[in-house]
Parts: sequence; C-alpha cells; structure tokens
Amino acid sequence: MNRIRVGLAGLGTVGSGFVKLLHQSRHTIRQRTGINIELVRVVELDKRRLKGLPLDQAQWSANLDDILKAADVDIVVELIGGTGVSREFILKAMKSRKHVVTANKALLAEHFSEIFSAADRNGVNIGFEASVAGGIPIIKILQESFLTNRIKKIYGILNGTTNYILTKMSLDNMDFASALKEAQKKGFAEADPTLDIDGLDAAHKALILCNLAFQVDVNFKDVMVSGIRNFDVSDIHYARELGYVVKLLAVSRLVKDGQIVTYVEPSLIPFKHLLASVNYEYNAIYIDGEAVGESVFYGKGAGSMPTANSVLSDVIDLARHIVAGTKVWHYRNLRKPDSTVNKNIMNEYYLRFMTADKPGVLGRIASILGKYGISISSCVQKDLDARVTAVVMTTHFCRKQDLESAVAYIRKNVRDVKAPIVVLNIR
Amino acid sequence: MNRIRVGLAGLGTVGSGFVKLLHQSRHTIRQRTGINIELVRVVELDKRRLKGLPLDQAQWSANLDDILKAADVDIVVELIGGTGVSREFILKAMKSRKHVVTANKALLAEHFSEIFSAADRNGVNIGFEASVAGGIPIIKILQESFLTNRIKKIYGILNGTTNYILTKMSLDNMDFASALKEAQKKGFAEADPTLDIDGLDAAHKALILCNLAFQVDVNFKDVMVSGIRNFDVSDIHYARELGYVVKLLAVSRLVKDGQIVTYVEPSLIPFKHLLASVNYEYNAIYIDGEAVGESVFYGKGAGSMPTANSVLSDVIDLARHIVAGTKVWHYRNLRKPDSTVNKNIMNEYYLRFMTADKPGVLGRIASILGKYGISISSCVQKDLDARVTAVVMTTHFCRKQDLESAVAYIRKNVRDVKAPIVVLNIR
Repeated sequence: MNRIRVGLAGLGTVGSGFVKLLHQSRHTIRQRTGINIELVRVVELDKRRLKGLPLDQAQWSANLDDILKAADVDIVVELIGGTGVSREFILKAMKSRKHVVTANKALLAEHFSEIFSAADRNGVNIGFEASVAGGIPIIKILQESFLTNRIKKIYGILNGTTNYILTKMSLDNMDFASALKEAQKKGFAEADPTLDIDGLDAAHKALILCNLAFQVDVNFKDVMVSGIRNFDVSDIHYARELGYVVKLLAVSRLVKDGQIVTYVEPSLIPFKHLLASVNYEYNAIYIDGEAVGESVFYGKGAGSMPTANSVLSDVIDLARHIVAGTKVWHYRNLRKPDSTVNKNIMNEYYLRFMTADKPGVLGRIASILGKYGISISSCVQKDLDARVTAVVMTTHFCRKQDLESAVAYIRKNVRDVKAPIVVLNIR
Repeated sequence: MNRIRVGLAGLGTVGSGFVKLLHQSRHTIRQRTGINIELVRVVELDKRRLKGLPLDQAQWSANLDDILKAADVDIVVELIGGTGVSREFILKAMKSRKHVVTANKALLAEHFSEIFSAADRNGVNIGFEASVAGGIPIIKILQESFLTNRIKKIYGILNGTTNYILTKMSLDNMDFASALKEAQKKGFAEADPTLDIDGLDAAHKALILCNLAFQVDVNFKDVMVSGIRNFDVSDIHYARELGYVVKLLAVSRLVKDGQIVTYVEPSLIPFKHLLASVNYEYNAIYIDGEAVGESVFYGKGAGSMPTANSVLSDVIDLARHIVAGTKVWHYRNLRKPDSTVNKNIMNEYYLRFMTADKPGVLGRIASILGKYGISISSCVQKDLDARVTAVVMTTHFCRKQDLESAVAYIRKNVRDVKAPIVVLNIR
C-alpha cells in the first residue's frame, strides 16, 4: 500500500470540510486507488477550530514553517486565501519539492504565470479544481476531457453571492440593498461583500477558465469587470418583458485570429437558455466547443463540502501522480494575447435611456444609433410620470466601439436624455 | 517523446470522427502530454469508408486479427458495436495485454463483470467515456471528481432519439408516430428504432452509471425498462397542465440499507427542474451527492465529433497511464445488490383513468386509493365526449407496491374504468 502524506494550511470552512471528507473517505480511496492518504500536519492560528474534527493535537501547529520543513509532507493543501502569506507559502512549498493543492482563485488569477512557472521549474504538480465553481469539476473537464475540444466560447455564472442577489431581485421583486441584506443574513454574502458584488471574485475565476480554455496567459488587469453594486431592479423588469433574465456573466470568447476577450458584466440571457434557470447560490458554466458543441455544467459554487470534495479529488489525483512519478500536464510558453481587441468585438446590447416625456426624443435617439450603424431589434417605451419616460431598446449585433461612440454622442448632445444611460450585454 | 500506438476497429460515424479529431489534435496532445499518439492500424470491412480521411492505405485491413496480432499496438479502440464480434475482440485484445477504449454500451451493460474482470486479470486499462452520454464526460466525473462524493441518486436523459420525439410531441403537439417519422428524417432515429424507443439503449447506459455511482454489480436483467412506444400525447398535455414535462428518465437510487433501484421509465419532471429544459437530441445527467449536493451535466449525447472527443480523451488518459505504468482504477469484488427491493420504493405518481361519464366514478377511484394508503395531491377531470371522461391525478409519496395493488383492484372491480390505466413516475 502506497502512503501519501498531506499537510493542510487553514482550517476555515473548506479546510474543516476537507478534514471530515478525507476521514470518511479513506476506505473508498484506498480501495479504488491503492493509496493511503494521511493528514500528517495541520497549521491553523486559531486552535479552537480543531474542536469536533477527527484530528490529533499532535498534528497541529500554528506555524506554516512546520509544514514547509516537514520531510514527511508530500502534498501541501493551501486553504489560507489572500495573495500575501499564501503566495510565499506556495512558492516555498514548491521550492522544497512539495506538490500543491489550492482553492485560492485570487492568487492564481493575479499571479498566474508566476505560480505555474514555479510548479514547472520545480517539477511539482498543482491542483486547483476548488478555485473555480466549488463542486463543479470544470478544471478537470477543461484540462482532460476537453483537451481536444477546441473551445470557441466559455461563459459562466461563477459567483453565488451575486447570483443569489439577482435571483432575489428578479423573483421576489427586491431592490439591490434588500437583496444584499437577505444574502448576508442567509450566509451567502460576506459582511464586506465588495469582492463579490463588484465582480472581482467572478473575474478571478474567469481569468483562470480563460487561460485554461484557450491555452493563453491573459493578465488579470486585462479582464474588464463591472459588478452589480446598486443594479437597478427596473432593468430586471424591462429585460423580462423583452424575454430575458439578468445574470452576472463571466465571459471568454475567441475572436478571429486567435484573439481573446474576457470580461465580467451583468448580461441578459434569453429565457430558454439553460443558464437562465440557474438560480440562487448555484453556479453553472456554458461551453461552446468545436468537437463537442454546447455543454453546460451546473452545481454548487461554494460551501464547505462541495469545495472540500474538489480539494480532495485534487489530492487523490496528485497522489496518483506522485506514486507514478508523472506530471499532471505541461503548461508553458503560453501566448500573451492582444489585449486591445476588446473594442472590436460584436455583440447585441440592451439600452435604457431616461428621457423627458417630449415628442421626438425616441426618434432622435434611434436616428443617432442608425448613423453609427446600430440597428434596433426591439423597443419598449414607458411613461414613468408626467415628466420622465424610460426608453428601453435591444440592438442587433454591432461593434462595441460604435455603440460606445453613439452612446457618448447621445449623452453629450441630446439634452432631453438624463443620466445614466444603461448599457448591458445580451448573450 | 513517448510513442503510443493505436489500433482502431470500425470506421463508422464515431470512428471516422475519431480519425479526424486525432489528426487535428496531435500537436495539442504532444504539447500538453509529451506523448505522440499514432494511429497504426485501422480495421474496417468497407474500404470505401477510408475516403476523405487522413489515413494511409497501408494502415488499413479488413481483418480484426491484424490488430490483435500486431506487436506495435498499445491501445485498441473498439467502435464496432454489438455484443458478439466486439466481445470476442475486446477479450482477446485484453488477453494479449492491449489496453481497450470502447463506446459500446450494450456490451458493457450486458457483460459488465466479465469485461471488467478480464481487464483486471490481464492488468490492462479500459476507457469507456463514450459509452454513456456522448460528449458529456460523466464517466470521468463519477470515477475521479466524485470519487468521495457519496451519491444518493443519479438520473438522466440518456437517449437522444426518445428525447427528440418527446420534445416534438410536447412543443409541436405531434403524436408519437409523426414525431418518430420526423426524428428518422432528421437522422436522430434509426430506420429500426426499437433499441431507442423501447428504452433499451437508455437502460444500457443506466446500468453503467448505476454500477459506477454506487460501486455495485447490478445485472442488466434487473433493470426495469419501459420505453415510449406509442406514448399518448394526451398525457403530455395533462402533465403540462399540472406543471410537469414528460421525459424518458434513467434512474438509479440508493434505498436504505445500501439497496439500489435502477429503472428506465417515462417520467414527469416539474417545469422548474433543470432537466425539464433539456430538449431535442440533448442529454443531461442529474446527480444528488452527499458532499457536492445537486449537480447537472448537459451536452450532446451522440454524434460523430462529440463521441469521438470522448473516445480520444480516453485514449489520451490511457496513453498517460501506459507511459507511467499505472492502472486507471481498481474495480473488483463489487457487491451484488438485492434485486427484490423495487417494490418497496416510495414515489409520487401520475395516474390517468378513462371512465364512463357517470356520477360517482371519481369518488369510487379516490376511495379505493385511500384504502390502499395512497393520498391524492391534485386531480383534473375532463369530459372528452358525452361518454368518456379522463380522470388525471397526481399522488403524494406512496409505496410502489401499494399503488400497483390499488390500480389492479380498480382495473378488476370498477367496471366504469376503461383500459388502459396510465401510471407514470414523478421526479
């Protein structure tokens, strides 16, 4: 029987789930892989977190060096989070030839090539299934099952907090602030929800998926991000009238000539699209690939046990590789795609203008859009009170840059249009 | 650079897709795995099928022995189908220590333990991702990603032909015969559609998923199967009125005490369930697991390139294992579950009775159901003409055996109820 020894850093939600799941699965793992996976070191500052877990006091320490210096640790599981201490820790672990499993999307997204180069240089494997979409095995699908399925686009609902908020706003007619408060009460949003609602968490995951799907090395700063802070519930209603739901989508698309665009934006999805039914805290990823066609993978995007299952499946994979002496995959010399391509992408858009209730305003807007080559596919006009009218439109496919120019022109020159003008992508 | 050599048997739809996909992916595979996968032998009776494929005449033969006897073949890809020649071929290939990749669900389902025991005995690996749900990587998900996610139930839409027919019946109000004809015209149904519409194809796949999900060795004859031959479109309409769609579901459930039930039956799914939106030729699999919770995997269930992608991903996995000298997984000593458990399962049901339009019939039916402990959750009654009334009901959870007894009693004793009585599962 082969023995593989694990050192765990961090006993938070996912860490404690990992300890429990490993404990209850050891027999299954032995039976199916012939490997005995042993948790030999646990580092956690707050000793009280050991309580109730199947752990021996002797395994515990408060010092990360105890894992790094331990000669008997084969795999390091990093569940500390953040990009400071965890980065140092992972780089040092790799330098001492330890394999690494991490759920840390921020670290991977912001230091993508540094982390993967270090793994390559030191001849160690890195598992990061838990970094994107919790319990959905999307990393394995991209790296293994879809290795020969050339991907054209990949987009997903990758943040449970914002999806919970948007679902509440849509189904229960709540405004943003109330939906956020409810998400916090139910434990789906942090006390400081900034990373989630401003789209950064989704952007971290989007970058990882983009780089894997297209075998590129996009810089995190090239991901365009807009979140849902103070998203207006009226746009959810107008969208529904036009046959769409609003979701915070993380999108990566292959544009012609191998150029890639990556962005996170609240977007309209047609009712019939499978992602339109992905509600509350759930995540889902849509892939359009050359060989396989359209695929969707749906599941829990966070939580103790779903994420722990992904961490543990990585540990098992790495253990198998250690026993065999093989490397998971070769990830080097990735292309840095052109980041200026974003303005040339084509899309359909949703537009909302708040205008004075005067004759001719709609005509003025429509003819300016027309001059910029933008054609309207549907239009709804609603008088909100005696003075204000909402003009809501969807466009046919047009160049993003043309749309931005037209909107800027309208903002500057059509006095009867009030700020702000809302522009949303349509999938 | 490592070399792995492949012998392919069968140049049908999937086989020719495999040849193309391997040809166009060789660079990617080399770059990512460091392995050169070479197609060295192709066996196909119909030589004309080589036309247009990137194949050398010298690689071709019409004799399966040419693959079996070739010392330079590491992996055999079996895409012949059926359970006769292909079974002999796979067993012989394993005996001569060749690893096997197959898309043959009938063979695996009907000779499950024979095939896996032979692989184990000969120390070779077997890949069968393509045997279930075409382009959806469900086998890898079950064997690797969800290894430690104890599964409670798994059910899926696993047959594209019947799903296409049911979708057409539902959305376009077609009867069964017309929908089947259309499916045949569009290439989604064979000239002889028996295997599909009688549910056998789905049952083959259900058995494979069941055995993997629960680590058991269920016999194929213990899978209860009912298909959709001459399914009455009126049940699709009544179901819709009650908030459901009808899908041919392949279900495996863990009953208490480790007992398993497996069946294929047309079943009602609530509108809101993700599987309810899986239309036309698409497949999807729903899994409820202890660690991960609810997951759904959606994609193309058949077709040349989606299935070829699964075959090729198996070949790549096996190639890596050959280079490393490792075995994919240990699959032995599987438990044979009790097959008599089926009658004790609890479910909700949809019932349709055609009755004479007389007072008191509904009351009679309801009180008989009540005597058997079956409580009604909703009921619709429709007069179809002056003489015939359709009484449609859904029940709360009840024992399957009680329901069957009640229905048998009604059939025998209530003269105003005409045959047949329709009983469908609700998910």
